Amino acid sequence: MPEPERIKAHDLEAFIARAFEAVHVPAPDAKIIAELMTRADVNGSEGHGIFRLPQYIRRIQGGAVNVRPEIRVEREAPAMALVHGDNGMGHLVMRFATRLAIEKARTAGVAWVGAKWSNHAGPASLYAAMPLEHDMIGMYLAVGSANHLPPWGGLEMLLSTNPLAVAVPTQEEPPLVLDMATTVAAYGKVKTKAQRGEMMPVGWMMDRNGNPLTDPKRSNEGFLLPIGEYKGYGLALIIGLLAGTLNQAAMGPDVVDFNADDTTPTNTGHAIVAISLAAFGDVTAFKRSVDTLVRDLRGSKRLPGVERIWLPGEQSHAKRIERSATGVPMPPALLASLAEVARELGIVPLA
Amino acid sequence: MPEPERIKAHDLEAFIARAFEAVHVPAPDAKIIAELMTRADVNGSEGHGIFRLPQYIRRIQGGAVNVRPEIRVEREAPAMALVHGDNGMGHLVMRFATRLAIEKARTAGVAWVGAKWSNHAGPASLYAAMPLEHDMIGMYLAVGSANHLPPWGGLEMLLSTNPLAVAVPTQEEPPLVLDMATTVAAYGKVKTKAQRGEMMPVGWMMDRNGNPLTDPKRSNEGFLLPIGEYKGYGLALIIGLLAGTLNQAAMGPDVVDFNADDTTPTNTGHAIVAISLAAFGDVTAFKRSVDTLVRDLRGSKRLPGVERIWLPGEQSHAKRIERSATGVPMPPALLASLAEVARELGIVPLA
Repeated sequence: MPEPERIKAHDLEAFIARAFEAVHVPAPDAKIIAELMTRADVNGSEGHGIFRLPQYIRRIQGGAVNVRPEIRVEREAPAMALVHGDNGMGHLVMRFATRLAIEKARTAGVAWVGAKWSNHAGPASLYAAMPLEHDMIGMYLAVGSANHLPPWGGLEMLLSTNPLAVAVPTQEEPPLVLDMATTVAAYGKVKTKAQRGEMMPVGWMMDRNGNPLTDPKRSNEGFLLPIGEYKGYGLALIIGLLAGTLNQAAMGPDVVDFNADDTTPTNTGHAIVAISLAAFGDVTAFKRSVDTLVRDLRGSKRLPGVERIWLPGEQSHAKRIERSATGVPMPPALLASLAEVARELGIVPLA
Repeated sequence: MPEPERIKAHDLEAFIARAFEAVHVPAPDAKIIAELMTRADVNGSEGHGIFRLPQYIRRIQGGAVNVRPEIRVEREAPAMALVHGDNGMGHLVMRFATRLAIEKARTAGVAWVGAKWSNHAGPASLYAAMPLEHDMIGMYLAVGSANHLPPWGGLEMLLSTNPLAVAVPTQEEPPLVLDMATTVAAYGKVKTKAQRGEMMPVGWMMDRNGNPLTDPKRSNEGFLLPIGEYKGYGLALIIGLLAGTLNQAAMGPDVVDFNADDTTPTNTGHAIVAISLAAFGDVTAFKRSVDTLVRDLRGSKRLPGVERIWLPGEQSHAKRIERSATGVPMPPALLASLAEVARELGIVPLA
């Protein structure tokens, strides 16, 4: 396969902003969304960056998302808040919620902010990583935007891949950023495989008879498998309760499949936790301890054939550096879908 | 196999208290530890109840644990505290920390309490479940008390099975209590297989060449496998950072193997989070929503051959009811080891 064309982050960001403005998102909000979506691509979270643009635009055009939300604090206490997203783009709601969590954690030491009436917000790591520059640990939980997971032993897809991300500051090493779905593969990875015409490994999905499903084009005939069998099911359930039910957001049968539906609001729930390192002790000492641990793990003996031990977030960090300099690789199918968006909206296409 | 003898919870508790008093734990503390250890057995967490008594006593006799700790708040903010356990029994430290988290969450909405210089505290679910009766969600994280897990791709066991437990209140249904190690199997399960002369399933352990290890008697020739491969490794690492490093407690290479060592303090770290339902909305409405979800999951269609869909904590709840009435089943080997403890300490044995 030829190397895919690369587009500079700045050009992606400008294009995304043009697209949102064309569907009547106010310019400052369009800029925020574009910046966060581009950051997702630069960080290597391709399944949650500009790849989602056509769908986001479709859902706005379908009336499923409010382009002029009044995002507000509905309830609060010293260490928590419940944010009402007013059905705005998830990026706007979660940026608001995360900034609030960081502010509250400065005085409370720790803060937990939930969000309701939000929407898909891109990769979990975007928000978990925001507290890093404030010397805080970030933890993000969300209800996924479509149910692909049955309870363990079940056939009905009542749960989503409900992701968890945690970001931990370091001193000299790349920050530790764990970003994981509670399924073996996230649904975005299945879509990427389908787009690339590749098969999935055994263990990603199962059909309705309990047999492995490996053709991503047949993904609607089966369901994703949880990590650690019943443990991943339990994790998906608990994350859904914390990010969804606790915030009076959709969970279980109430979750709208935003891949299949362009008109229904999703009432997506998320939660963000900020933990101030300074509350617990000396900030630099903590970060140095993390660096030491990172080096202990990276430098430890490897299984035969293993070239390198990776830390969570390390590959994303490497991509961030490389893509910031050289641009984001854009597969032809994605470029075609974005050209189509530009034509439909009558905006200047990607360079 | 004949049905194992059952001992009433009250008798177990009294025996455990006698044992700790015999090694100079003050009577009120001995009573607290005995109550929590017995609760673990009644809840079905056999690997973390009275089964641990001989080891706890040995470590106290070896000078590894302080029997008269001054457990204290070292740092605090409105929504957090760092508790110094003064190397006391983990049960005492975590009961103190959990009560503090509950108190703080009443006003702050959410509270996160870390602990350092603690010790093994029994099953994770014990502490996660304490906030339930206060209409709070509980979340507990800990650094395990021995390293059995290498980083993904690695050979050196630098991480423990670092467990996570989350407990969520319900209205009429049994509370949801997820209690999971980040490895496919906890090390206690390997020990149980060895004791019973059974083989382990493929996927629990791997040998040093990367091949499956299924003979539990050879467990020292390999290591446990994380759930979801690199995801479970990432989870174990992050939980260790939050429960250990953040609290200046042992993590990574600093972790003392408390199974092999009766003299060295472990500086065990834990964290407990309490989340007040009332801060987020109507308490009864939340609990009813959880009940509804539980029933949706339990009543959903099953894969061929599956008899029942279980919710996290449901099997433990059933054991709690049954064992409260009929006592805790005690295998002969365990009874023999407890008789030996009684002889050595010169205390009245179990009835």
